[in-house]
Amino acid sequence: MTDPVVGQHLLVELGGCDPARLDDPAAITALIRGGAAAAGTRLLSEAVHRFQPMGVTGFGLLAESHLAVHTWPERGYAAVDLMTCRSDTDVDGVVAFLRAALGAATAEVRLIDRRVP
Amino acid sequence: MTDPVVGQHLLVELGGCDPARLDDPAAITALIRGGAAAAGTRLLSEAVHRFQPMGVTGFGLLAESHLAVHTWPERGYAAVDLMTCRSDTDVDGVVAFLRAALGAATAEVRLIDRRVP
Repeated sequence: MTDPVVGQHLLVELGGCDPARLDDPAAITALIRGGAAAAGTRLLSEAVHRFQPMGVTGFGLLAESHLAVHTWPERGYAAVDLMTCRSDTDVDGVVAFLRAALGAATAEVRLIDRRVP
Repeated sequence: MTDPVVGQHLLVELGGCDPARLDDPAAITALIRGGAAAAGTRLLSEAVHRFQPMGVTGFGLLAESHLAVHTWPERGYAAVDLMTCRSDTDVDGVVAFLRAALGAATAEVRLIDRRVP
């Protein structure tokens, strides 16, 4: 029988981050590129948008699914999600990269199976 | 005290979909646009990529966060996720739109709070 699980969706809440980095499109672009690499995935395209008065959204379209980040500089918070159809993602390595990239003090991690219903 | 919850992340697994629509970039573009509208969100940019030999990824960057879809035509399956910083999203309306757009027979829905850790 074919496995109904097609991939994993990693949700990471990063708190106590450096507000300057959270509001910097270049830092978020670097996060998307580095995060894709840390996950062992291939980045096909990316988009980054800065909001007024603050906050950035970044998205990476991956050969293996996607990586997205949304930031709230005023709260020192970033919401990251990585969906991948790989089953061998180095979750600890990805989270360590994200924490370092944003200078996060805390991280909450949830890993959710994506599956054919 | 400020509410730690900044938004909601809706994960939808759609099964028994029309394989032709799942493999059609135009149908996935329409899904992103219609899904953003059904969620009452504003679409800022979109990206759609078709894989070989099959499968499509679509992404919409929203003023309120993001909408992503990944399809497996060979399994009649689409994985959709909508993150929004609205608290009044019409989840049932969004899921009904997605089901109709892809001719899905079944849908599994999970709604996850995104929050400052």
